[in-house]
Amino acid sequence: MKVAYLGPNGSFSEEAALKTFVDSTIDWQLCGSILEVLEAVGDRKVDKGIVPIENSIEGTINITADGLLANNLFIESEVIFPVSLRLLVNEGVQLEDVQEVWSITPALAQCKEFIRENQVKTKEFDSTSSAAKALKEQGRIDAGAIASSAAARLFGLQIASTKVQDNGENHTRFLVVGKRSADVLPFHKRNKIMLLIAPALDQSGVLSSILNVFSALSINLTWIESRPTKKRLGTYHFFIEAETGKDEAKTGKALKILRAFGHEVQVLGSYDTNRL
Amino acid sequence: MKVAYLGPNGSFSEEAALKTFVDSTIDWQLCGSILEVLEAVGDRKVDKGIVPIENSIEGTINITADGLLANNLFIESEVIFPVSLRLLVNEGVQLEDVQEVWSITPALAQCKEFIRENQVKTKEFDSTSSAAKALKEQGRIDAGAIASSAAARLFGLQIASTKVQDNGENHTRFLVVGKRSADVLPFHKRNKIMLLIAPALDQSGVLSSILNVFSALSINLTWIESRPTKKRLGTYHFFIEAETGKDEAKTGKALKILRAFGHEVQVLGSYDTNRL
Repeated sequence: MKVAYLGPNGSFSEEAALKTFVDSTIDWQLCGSILEVLEAVGDRKVDKGIVPIENSIEGTINITADGLLANNLFIESEVIFPVSLRLLVNEGVQLEDVQEVWSITPALAQCKEFIRENQVKTKEFDSTSSAAKALKEQGRIDAGAIASSAAARLFGLQIASTKVQDNGENHTRFLVVGKRSADVLPFHKRNKIMLLIAPALDQSGVLSSILNVFSALSINLTWIESRPTKKRLGTYHFFIEAETGKDEAKTGKALKILRAFGHEVQVLGSYDTNRL
Repeated sequence: MKVAYLGPNGSFSEEAALKTFVDSTIDWQLCGSILEVLEAVGDRKVDKGIVPIENSIEGTINITADGLLANNLFIESEVIFPVSLRLLVNEGVQLEDVQEVWSITPALAQCKEFIRENQVKTKEFDSTSSAAKALKEQGRIDAGAIASSAAARLFGLQIASTKVQDNGENHTRFLVVGKRSADVLPFHKRNKIMLLIAPALDQSGVLSSILNVFSALSINLTWIESRPTKKRLGTYHFFIEAETGKDEAKTGKALKILRAFGHEVQVLGSYDTNRL
C-alpha cells in the first residue's frame, strides 16, 4: 500500500503517519505540500494520504478542507496527535545564547510568550523540520529552531527547552483520506460523519435553520467550519461534523430533511477517532 | 497620524492602505507580518492598522482574527478590495518561456488551473511582492511571479498574462483597527457589528441556540467563524458579524438576550463598509 504525507523527514505529519500505519510494508510517499498529498490520492498515485485538518491553537487548515473537495476524497479515519514543540539548538549552545528562533509561522504563533519574554527575533521557514535542518547546516550558535523531538534526533540537534509553548495542551487532528469510490457507502457504522452543506439560498438565518435539524434529532455537532464558495465574497458552504454514534437511521433522517429543505448535502466521510 | 500595514512595498495591503487613507500627511509604518501590524496598534506605536481578514477564495485569515483579540483592538471600518493577480516576467520573456511560477501559497492556490494547464512548477515565497522582487533581481527568463500590477510597476517587470486566476472575482476584505479605548461606544450608528461569543457551556446545540437569537430578531448574519479557544481541541468561540442596520435598540436587545443565556459576548467593532 502506498501512503502519502507531508514531508520532509522529521515533520509532525511524518510522526503521525508512522504511528497511524504500523505496517512495515508501506511504500511511503513524501510530498512537498498538503495539496500535493491530496492530489496524489485524488490522482490515484497513492492509496491513502494523511493530512492535518485542525490544530487546537491554529484552528482549521483551510488548504486541507478545500483540497478534500477539489480532489473528490473520502475521509476514512481521524487521528488526534499531541504536538510538543521544543527549542532545538546546535551542540553546546545554551538557551541564553539564542537571539533568534526559526520555525513555521503557526509554531512561532504558538510560542509567543516565550518569544516576548526572551526578546528573540523570529525567522519563518516552510516547515519546522526545514528550520531545524538549516540550523544544523549553518551551524548557527545564536539561533534556535522550534520543532519536534523527532527533528532533534534526525538532525543531531540538542533540546535547549521543552517549555516554549504558550499552552500546555496542543493537539493536531489528522485525517486519513482515500479516493471516493462508487462502492463506498455514504455512511456506515462509524461514530462520526463529515458533511458539506451548500445552503439552498443565501438567505438570512439559513445556518440556524440547518443547525436546528441536528438539534431536533439530538445529534451533537463536533465541528463547523464555513468556507467561501469561491464564487463571490460573502457566500459560504459549511463543513459540519456530527457525532452520529453509528445510528444510521437517524443519520439518514437528518440527510433527508436537509435535502428536503433544498440544501445540497455531500457526505465527505464517516469514521472513528484514533488517539495517538 | 501613524498607520501600519503589511509590507513590503508593492503588496496588496499597501495598495489597499493607500486607497483607504487618502491623506498625504500619514506616517506609514510597513510591518513584516500581520501580527506585527496588530501588535503595533495594540502597543500604541501607531494610531491605526489595516489588515486583511478574509479573501473570497482563501477564506478567513486566522492570524488576524486571533490577533484582534490578543491585542485588544476595535474594528473601525471594513474595506472591500478587488484583487487582480497577474503573471509578471522579466523584459522580453514570453508566456511560453515560463517553466516555473513564484508566489505566496494562497495566490498559487488561486491560479491552480493556469498552473495545471501550462504544466509549470511552483515555488513559494513570503509575499507576492517578494516573489516579484526575487524574479527581477535574479533576472530569470524561465520563471514568472504571480503578483499585482503595482508590483510590476514597482520592480520594473512586464505583465505576461492577466488571465491567471481560476475565478474571475476575487476580493479581499480588510479591517481598519484601532486600540480599544474606554470612551469608544460598544456599538453606535454603524451598519455592521462584530461580536465574539464564547458559549456558556460546551453543550450540544449551543451554536444553533445562539443563531436563533439573531433569527428571532430578524438580524442578518454576514459572517460566522469558529476559532479554537486554544484551551482544548474541540472547544470554540465564534466571531459573528451582523448587519444591525444602525438599529441600536435591536442590537442592544440581542446582546442582552445572549448574555442572559449565559454566553460571554464581546463587541469587537461597529463599522460601515467601504468598497474600493
